[in-house]
Order: sequence, then C-alpha cells, then structure tokens
Amino acid sequence: MPLLGLLPRRAWASLLSQLLRPPCASCTGAVRCQSQVAEAVLTSQLKAHQEKPNFIIKTPKGTRDLSPQHMVVREKILDLVISCFKRHGAKGMDTPAFELKETLTEKYGEDSGLMYDLKDQGGELLSLRYDLTVPFARYLAMNKVKKMKRYHVGKVWRRESPTIVQGRYREFCQCDFDIAGQFDPMIPDAECLKIMCEILSGLQLGDFLIKVNDRRIVDGMFAVCGVPESKFRAICSSIDKLDKMAWKDVRHEMVVKKGLAPEVADRIGDYVQCHGGVSLVEQMFQDPRLSQNKQALEGLGDLKLLFEYLTLFGIADKISFDLSLARGLDYYTGVIYEAVLLQTPTQAGEEPLNVGSVAAGGRYDGLVGMFDPKGHKVPCVGLSIGVERIFYIVEQRMETKGEKVRTTETQVFVATPQKNFLQERLKLIAELWDSGIKAEMLYKNNPKLLTQLHYCESTGIPLVVIIGEQELKEGVIKIRSVASREEVAIKRENFVAEIQKRLSES
Amino acid sequence: MPLLGLLPRRAWASLLSQLLRPPCASCTGAVRCQSQVAEAVLTSQLKAHQEKPNFIIKTPKGTRDLSPQHMVVREKILDLVISCFKRHGAKGMDTPAFELKETLTEKYGEDSGLMYDLKDQGGELLSLRYDLTVPFARYLAMNKVKKMKRYHVGKVWRRESPTIVQGRYREFCQCDFDIAGQFDPMIPDAECLKIMCEILSGLQLGDFLIKVNDRRIVDGMFAVCGVPESKFRAICSSIDKLDKMAWKDVRHEMVVKKGLAPEVADRIGDYVQCHGGVSLVEQMFQDPRLSQNKQALEGLGDLKLLFEYLTLFGIADKISFDLSLARGLDYYTGVIYEAVLLQTPTQAGEEPLNVGSVAAGGRYDGLVGMFDPKGHKVPCVGLSIGVERIFYIVEQRMETKGEKVRTTETQVFVATPQKNFLQERLKLIAELWDSGIKAEMLYKNNPKLLTQLHYCESTGIPLVVIIGEQELKEGVIKIRSVASREEVAIKRENFVAEIQKRLSES
Repeated sequence: MPLLGLLPRRAWASLLSQLLRPPCASCTGAVRCQSQVAEAVLTSQLKAHQEKPNFIIKTPKGTRDLSPQHMVVREKILDLVISCFKRHGAKGMDTPAFELKETLTEKYGEDSGLMYDLKDQGGELLSLRYDLTVPFARYLAMNKVKKMKRYHVGKVWRRESPTIVQGRYREFCQCDFDIAGQFDPMIPDAECLKIMCEILSGLQLGDFLIKVNDRRIVDGMFAVCGVPESKFRAICSSIDKLDKMAWKDVRHEMVVKKGLAPEVADRIGDYVQCHGGVSLVEQMFQDPRLSQNKQALEGLGDLKLLFEYLTLFGIADKISFDLSLARGLDYYTGVIYEAVLLQTPTQAGEEPLNVGSVAAGGRYDGLVGMFDPKGHKVPCVGLSIGVERIFYIVEQRMETKGEKVRTTETQVFVATPQKNFLQERLKLIAELWDSGIKAEMLYKNNPKLLTQLHYCESTGIPLVVIIGEQELKEGVIKIRSVASREEVAIKRENFVAEIQKRLSES
Repeated sequence: MPLLGLLPRRAWASLLSQLLRPPCASCTGAVRCQSQVAEAVLTSQLKAHQEKPNFIIKTPKGTRDLSPQHMVVREKILDLVISCFKRHGAKGMDTPAFELKETLTEKYGEDSGLMYDLKDQGGELLSLRYDLTVPFARYLAMNKVKKMKRYHVGKVWRRESPTIVQGRYREFCQCDFDIAGQFDPMIPDAECLKIMCEILSGLQLGDFLIKVNDRRIVDGMFAVCGVPESKFRAICSSIDKLDKMAWKDVRHEMVVKKGLAPEVADRIGDYVQCHGGVSLVEQMFQDPRLSQNKQALEGLGDLKLLFEYLTLFGIADKISFDLSLARGLDYYTGVIYEAVLLQTPTQAGEEPLNVGSVAAGGRYDGLVGMFDPKGHKVPCVGLSIGVERIFYIVEQRMETKGEKVRTTETQVFVATPQKNFLQERLKLIAELWDSGIKAEMLYKNNPKLLTQLHYCESTGIPLVVIIGEQELKEGVIKIRSVASREEVAIKRENFVAEIQKRLSES
C-alpha cells in the first residue's frame, strides 16, 4: 500500500470528502457501504502516516554507512595492501556474499552460532560468508585447482555483540592473501610473514611484532600436559583469549567452564608464558616433556626452518615464537601467526590505543579436502590483514592530529562573476571533462562569485577558470590560483593546455 | 558434529571396538546401554560420511565465483567508470549489504518480491539491498544531508530467475552516480547524461543511443489516453517491457492481465511509437491531447531545456526523446533515461549480442522525503552503469578474438640453474620486493631451470634474474629477457637499479 504522502492529491481529496459525508443510513453489519470502505482505507493510511515518525531510520544493528571521509582513508590503505599482494604475484578473485549453509558449517568451531542465515524463501539454505578462507577452499575443491596464489578483498558478516568503541562491527572488510599448493616446506609460509612485515611497515603504524607458533606444538603441549584429546579445540579457544584476558581468567574458564583438571591447567600455564626467538625453538627441542611428542617435534622442526628463511628475508627480528598463540579457528593445522602493534608509551598528543592483532593467519592443510568428494588435500597457507582495525587506528590518529582529507579530487572549478553565463560555463566545463580534467561548477544559473570561490576553498580545489563579459569580449579565460589568488588571462583556445601544464607541475 | 574424517584416529578406533562387541544382554527398551549410544553416534557419522560425496559443492543458485580472469576485466572497466565519476567531482561512499526490511519495502513496485530476506535470528528484520539508490536516500535522510554528489560501487542482490546465458545473476555489481540537492532545473540532469556518454565512449563498446523521457510525460500520456490513475504504475511496468517484448504482447498484458480498456491501450500504442530529437519535443507541445495536460507540459518544458544543455555539452546527437521509455521503478518523478548499444550489423567475426540497456537513471525527487519524519524532500537525479552487462560484452569480445589477459602483474622472476640455491634466491627476491618490484620464484628447494623459464613464458613475466655458482663466484647476477632470450651479467650490487631502469623503459 502506498504511503499517504505518495497518494495523488486528487485521490486524497476524494477519500477525504467521502469520509466527511454523514454516515450512510442504510448501513448494515453484513455489507459495508462505500464510505465505510473509504474510511477503512484512509484510517490505515493515516495510521501508516502517524507511524512514520516512529519508524526509526537507521542502519541495522552493528553496521554503519561509510562516509566519503571513511572511504578516502580506506582507499589509501587498501591500495597499499593490494599492491603488496600484487608485488608477490597474487591474482584477484571474488566469491558470492553468501554460500550454501552446509558449506560453512563445522568450519569455525565455537563461533559457528554467529553466522547470518538467509530466510528460507523456497530453495537453498544460505548463510552470509563468515570469512574469505572457507569460500577460497570451496572454490579450490569445486574447480579442482591444485595451485593458486590469490588475494581477496571483501566484506564478511558476523553476528557478534558489537563493541563499537573498539571499531568492531557486524559487517566488516577482510583482506586475505593465500598460497595453495604442495610445495617445499616453509617457503610459502615465510613469504606470508614477509608480506605482513611489508604491509605493516608500509602503513607506518609504528613498531610491531609477529607472534608465531604451530598448531602441532599447541596440540603437543596439550597432550603432554594431560588435556584429553576431546577437549583440544575447546582449550585452544580459551588459550586464544590470552591477548585479551589475564591468565587467571583463562585458567578459570578452562577449569570451571571446560572441566579441565587444575594441575593440567597449571602445566599449560608454564608453557604459555614462554616467548622468544629461534633460541626458544632450540630450548623447546630439549624440553623433557615436549620433546617426547612427535607432533610437537614436527612443528618445532618447521619453525626452525622458518626462522632460517625469515633471517634471509631480513625480518627475523620482527618475529617472536610465542607458546601462548593458539588461534581460535578449527581449520589450522601447522604454523600460525598474529601481528600486534607495540604500544609506544604515550606519543605526543596520542591516546593510547588498545588495538589487539592487526594481521593473522596460518597453515590449513585439511580444509580443501573437506570439500573434495574423495578428500584430496590441497595444502594452504595464508594471512588476513586486519584492515578494519587499521582503518580505525589511522582515523583516530588523523582525528587527534586534526588532519583533514579531501573527499573529492576536483582540479578545476568553472566560475563566472556575471549573470547569464551558464551557457559559457557549460561549454568550458565540457571541454575540461573531455580533456580528462576533473572539474566542477555550481548547478545554478546565476551564482555569486564569492559563493563560487568559497566552494573552492572549502573543498580544496586548486584552480579556477573564470569567464565573464570582459573575457568573452577579449577571447580569453582567466585562470586563478585559489591559494595565491593570482589571476592570469589565457587565450581561450589555449586554456586547456595551460591548465594541463599547471596540473602536471603541481 | 564433526565429520568422520575429522575424528581423531584414537576416538575412531574406540567407537569401532565398542560397536564390534556382542550386543549387551541386559539391554531394555527404556535405557540404552553404552554400546547402543556409541552405535547411534557412529551410524550418524557414517551417514554423514556417506553423504559427503552427495553434498554438491557449488555456489548458491544464480551466483558465481569471479575468477582472476573475470577480475582483471572488471578492474579495468571499473577503474574507467570510477575515474569518470571522480572527474565530475563525486565522493565515494558505502552502505551495509543489508538494510532494515522496512527501509526497502514499497520502493520497488512490482519487483518487491525479489528481495532476499535474512532469517529472523532474534533482533531486527533485515533484507539484502536491492539497489544502491534506496540506501542512498536513506543515508541522506538519516544524516540530514541536503546536498551531495556521490558514487557508489557495490553488490546488490535480487532473487530473479537467472538466465545465465544473458549474463544475469542474482548477485551483481552496481555502479551509481547521483546528485542530491535543490538546484536550478536540468543542470545536474544534463551532467548525468554527459557522464553516461563519457563512460560509454571511453569503454569503446561501439555506437550507442540514450533514450530520454519524463515520468510526468508518461503519466500525462496515461491520463489523456484514459488510463485510470490507480493503474498508472502497473501500466508503466508494462510499457517498460517494450525493449524486450513486441507491442502486441505488451498490449495483451495491459488489456488482459491489467484490465485496461482496448481503446485506451491503442491510444497509448500511438504515442509509444514516437521517438526523435528536440523537434519531437516541439511536436508534442502541439499535440492536441498531451498539450492539455499540465504535468506533461512541465515534463516537455524540462526536456526542452535539457536538450539545450546537451547541445552545449556536444552530446545532443546521442540523445533520443522516446515516448516508449517508462522505467519500471516506482520512485522516478521527472526525467528518465536509458542507454542502449546500437547493434552494428555483424562486425567481422563477432556474434550479434542482445545486450539491452547498458546504463540508465532518472530523477527521483520524492524518495528521500519518504524517509524523513517530516517528509522534507531532497531532489535527486542519478544514473547506474550496467557494468555486469558491460563485463559480459567485453568478455565475449575477448573470447571471440582469442585475447588473453595476464592475471598477475609480476615483473621479475628469480631463477637458478643449480641445486642448493634457495638461500640466494630468497635473499635476491627480498631485495626486489623491498625495492617495490613485483617478483616471484618457485616454492621449491631445487627447481629445474626449464620449469622456471616455462613458468615465466606461460604467465607473461618479462624479466628473469638468474643466480648460480658462476654468478655467485663472479659477484654478478644474470638478467634475462624472456621475449628475446638475451642475457647480460650485472654486478650484484647494481642489479636492482638495472632492473628498475629496464622496467621504466618498457
């Protein structure tokens, strides 16, 4: 039913006149006369109208619009991230925003309940994608791709309780790079860490550290500490919270909520305090308990090789072997990593930011096989840049510094000091556009010159071309620099070339 | 429940041994013994396992993955479109993929049933966005923005029966440019048409034509032909099908399905055959019936002014006033337009493509007011580039011509002719990456030289740097051009500079 405001005036008047007529004497209960019908229609429409102010205009819970200011910051950061991915030979790809629900089930461990499902409107059961990794694995299996280096930038959706102050939303952008294929050990893994370093250095976010561990070391640690195998993934999820929670709270969760024996928890507690460089890897090789576990030894062996490659890449000093790193997601099978920014103690004027991890990833050799009818595996390793956190950090810093960004790229404004120059302005601006110059003018027949110049100043347009009676008579165009307020007259036929010259110089 | 393949081997064995035990003698109907429970678990897991091959790995109906080949074409086309939007001073923005369901209802006329709803998981009722225009209007009303020139590139979703051969999907990309604000008549409208021309010329898709009409002329035509006001929007939807259906079928729909009197349909039939330039506008001013309708006269007046501006922009020859153009969406209130490619009769080797419209838009002055509690209006005019159709056309043409595109941008490959040169390769490639050069190598300890060179040829990498025993001894790096197969030795410390020089020259 159309809203009242959309009813044509005539229909409106006719409904109203019917309503204002005296009640029909012949009305009986069974048959409603015309005026009653009209009244019912009108009442429901008035109701709709009255309800209108109560209809809250908002974006869905946990989501937000991205304003032009947001977009400019994002574009800059994403450009840097994507050009790094391309520097490493990655191809772009995209997958649908939603997947068959069964594609996504049993991939995310404890977090599966946070998926957005689509309504069953007859047809397949669908869910919005929860990350970009599972769709990538599905793509590889579906197309029988055995080898691929790809990046993927796209939105994902999670029904988390949004804590908006931390810059966390239910809709957010992910930026993933992954290498699929059977290769010699640790070469692609080392490249993933190199990429993380290049991006975090390139973004100039300050000092950072990449924590590294291996799922096999985590599992081995659990085994030698006495965690029952059935509890591995649940305890893994608890350990994963160590960057946000104190050990005593994590221990409490493991013992009380997840039923772990206190002495087992304490044994884990000893390990998860350990972090260091390649020397810690050597030390763990000698650990009396851990060295008895085959899985852990495999993980330690790979980490040793990884450190060798990281040294050749010149980034070993950025990497820390950290036994508290567990990564919550179910699908990791080997090396795992997570980059954190190091809090420099109160930089001048900056608020201390609790940002958590800004990039993470790991090896997942079993995920593609879960989609293959015959279980054929395609080993994968990859990383995800936490761009939403990075956007947030950069925006916060800009705000603190009072930095403004231009949200348009307009180079030239077409102005006139006199009335009745719309036609000339339209001709001029078309010439500029046709020459590839970014140009604007006011959509008014007779704008005031001051209004036009003010528009340039407030939006950061550097050049103005001015056409008026005098210029028209002399066959020239005035070019004005907004910053210096200098004006020069240029022959009409040369003005585009002159502007191009000035723009290329600036 | 985990898939069987994920059960740890030990748990698997224990379940199996329990199942193989002889049935428990003490079993009663009421209490199930342990082995029965184990059996139930195992059966359901075996079932899951057996079903696995039957689980079809696919993307949801009407959607598809975008491969690297698709992405390269898209990126190129979107770059051109977006740089045109920026040339006209537009700002970027984005809105969430879903909106409150009530934000979207009553905006799309007959098509509302094609919306994807999200499942009610406790909370708000949500739907995936159906276009980018309604979210834009909601954004303006919500933020009380009275003036804005923005572009928006994003996915939208419609549950249409996909006719995939035509390149139509349920998930597709939209590319919109809109100007919101109260301005002097037809200046922003003319700019929208200019933008459509710039983009369609820039994309070199061949000759095109932009049909123009005005909703007020459509409504005026309906009124003077005798269409009851209550049927305006329904008849409008029928007229909108004239580009895909013959007049006699559209007439049939109007008369039989929508209950229009045959003589009324025939009167409409006379009008919708009319198309031409500004002279047709003049002719319609003189039309005995249409000239009696106030709305139609307003529309004709605006079109006349529009043609004046289009002439100044130098694009009047691309524009055709076409009385058959109606545009299906409810929210248009003024000028409407649609660009179609003109079929050049059988270009050499090309399949004739039925592409329909490749860009469209119009004025919608009432939409923002529908979201404002007080009904405050913000007049808007905009356009949408039919990028999906354009992607499809370009891809088809490339296929016909056998054109291949590179899906990576890698400039340099790091190779070795000998074994045990992984360390040197890793050092070299890190230097390249750190200098911003796009570089790849094979993730093998000891790859064959031929395999490495073949990789370069098949992926289009132009340069190879080679390090082997001899080069190491002499302190040089060999640089090889893949195309010419020429090789030169460069001092190790100069090789990055030499590569940068070569890349800047090519």
